[in-house]
Amino acid sequence: MKILVPDAYRGALPHIDDADVVVIAAGEPVPEEHVDAEVLVVWGQPLDVLTDAARRMRHLRLVQGLLAGPDILRAAGFAPDVALASGVGLHDGPVAEHALALTLALVRMLPLAMRRQREHAWDAVLGGAMLERAHDGRVISLEGAQVTVWGFGSIASRLAPLLRGMGAWVTGVARSAGPRHGFDVVAEDSLPEVLGRTDVLIMILPRDESTHAALNAKRLKQLKPSALVVNVGRGTTVDEDALLAALRSGHVAGAALDVTAVEPLPESSPLWDEPSVIITPHVASGRPQRAERLIEANVAALREGGDITNLMAR
Amino acid sequence: MKILVPDAYRGALPHIDDADVVVIAAGEPVPEEHVDAEVLVVWGQPLDVLTDAARRMRHLRLVQGLLAGPDILRAAGFAPDVALASGVGLHDGPVAEHALALTLALVRMLPLAMRRQREHAWDAVLGGAMLERAHDGRVISLEGAQVTVWGFGSIASRLAPLLRGMGAWVTGVARSAGPRHGFDVVAEDSLPEVLGRTDVLIMILPRDESTHAALNAKRLKQLKPSALVVNVGRGTTVDEDALLAALRSGHVAGAALDVTAVEPLPESSPLWDEPSVIITPHVASGRPQRAERLIEANVAALREGGDITNLMAR
Repeated sequence: MKILVPDAYRGALPHIDDADVVVIAAGEPVPEEHVDAEVLVVWGQPLDVLTDAARRMRHLRLVQGLLAGPDILRAAGFAPDVALASGVGLHDGPVAEHALALTLALVRMLPLAMRRQREHAWDAVLGGAMLERAHDGRVISLEGAQVTVWGFGSIASRLAPLLRGMGAWVTGVARSAGPRHGFDVVAEDSLPEVLGRTDVLIMILPRDESTHAALNAKRLKQLKPSALVVNVGRGTTVDEDALLAALRSGHVAGAALDVTAVEPLPESSPLWDEPSVIITPHVASGRPQRAERLIEANVAALREGGDITNLMAR
Repeated sequence: MKILVPDAYRGALPHIDDADVVVIAAGEPVPEEHVDAEVLVVWGQPLDVLTDAARRMRHLRLVQGLLAGPDILRAAGFAPDVALASGVGLHDGPVAEHALALTLALVRMLPLAMRRQREHAWDAVLGGAMLERAHDGRVISLEGAQVTVWGFGSIASRLAPLLRGMGAWVTGVARSAGPRHGFDVVAEDSLPEVLGRTDVLIMILPRDESTHAALNAKRLKQLKPSALVVNVGRGTTVDEDALLAALRSGHVAGAALDVTAVEPLPESSPLWDEPSVIITPHVASGRPQRAERLIEANVAALREGGDITNLMAR
């Protein structure tokens, strides 16, 4: 059995008996001598390389993505008998950590602090005797803050306990209601009420038709003017024009976006210069953890006819 | 009994039977009609106002600071029979939160991200396929990072579990060795060894003679070139010239300072412009929590002859 691993992945390689693990260039078409591989690991290949691989790799049985999101695997057009497995779970810790970093940066007003730092200004507004909320009602601490996590899957299961540990009240929003991982989770029909009391909204929605522009002008109006928005899910789930309008008119107090509708975010986007916006270039999830074990387990499942972890519905 | 509370404190006022709670201007000398007060709450008064109060308030029995640090109460020259009590504990949560915000901002490279944001640049160095460490060896996640907390008191007891919850290995440094709050704490004679394996050094030392320039050129050299430094204790505990030299020569990778040796940090300080430095203007602790309960408890102790919480040695 031959297993192709792209060189963009720099973690430990899987150890699999009687298998050739071959490292290939992520940015190049699969070399002719390796189109006979039965397993293709996906990490860092552009879509056109995958589309080409789907056409040329006739012996493929498993495409093992290391990305949390399934979109690029679906888009590449692999044959229906090829098992597609995502990297859901490999990124839970890193994405939760980045979401917390962005949330704390907004809550602790680091964009303003760093702007004042460039001006060599020790700003009394930032320092001194603050209480639980700033003059405009925004929270300046997670202690007692209402945090809503929209998209309550495995990443949220890592993030929510961290938020709770810092004193926040966490509410999840998902397709179906009911407690999950020890947290209250409501369905989307409760959004008007939940958004109305939210201090920080953290979006971790996947990309699909049902989530397109989920945070639109109507939803943004349901938030308090003091609310902060963080997106570590997919950029398409936020209507960026509506978000920009809400920020500029003071209907939302700040935003931190690790993902944007078009990536890279075009140089001409007005989001770059918005003072209350933090943009990070899709870095939350660039660190798959213990990926070699997922590859090993799924190759074993393939050989022994067991269940493939993270198998995607076709 | 008359209790003076400065107007800079905007939290709940204490409820005390048979006592007048009088709110006074924090920035002005105590009004003549109130120098007969027996309790003075300190929050936001400048040193000269306190020195003046120490001279004029002849009936004073308790000075209740709401600050975590004892320095300004000691400096004001209150008579030896006046009980001085600090606000240790009121700031544990907020300071721990700010320390974590600064730590995550450094680890997740937000200063670089925000610089690139100003240039409208979606930076591939920040994004894409990263593993546990950047090319220069610095950590890019707290998962598996070695975090050393120098000054392991009540703030650290709140911070250390948060760091552990994010996957970091936490070591405390204090005057005496031995486990505290479930964490390994070593004495300062272990610093050479501990600093040598530290990824993030968080300083929470109080200001006194023994801590002056504790992090000096010698200690900075014991750190790895990839190490990050956070200070939320007192600015005097770091030799800023030595830190600047270490940052510029690549002997330390970044720093986040909420406190500086002189505050406000002078406009001419080169620290402002150092690209790997985050400066926040002493904002970690500006949020005393449940201070009214501490005041109530200590007034009751005063009346009933009980133990005063946070009583400072004279």
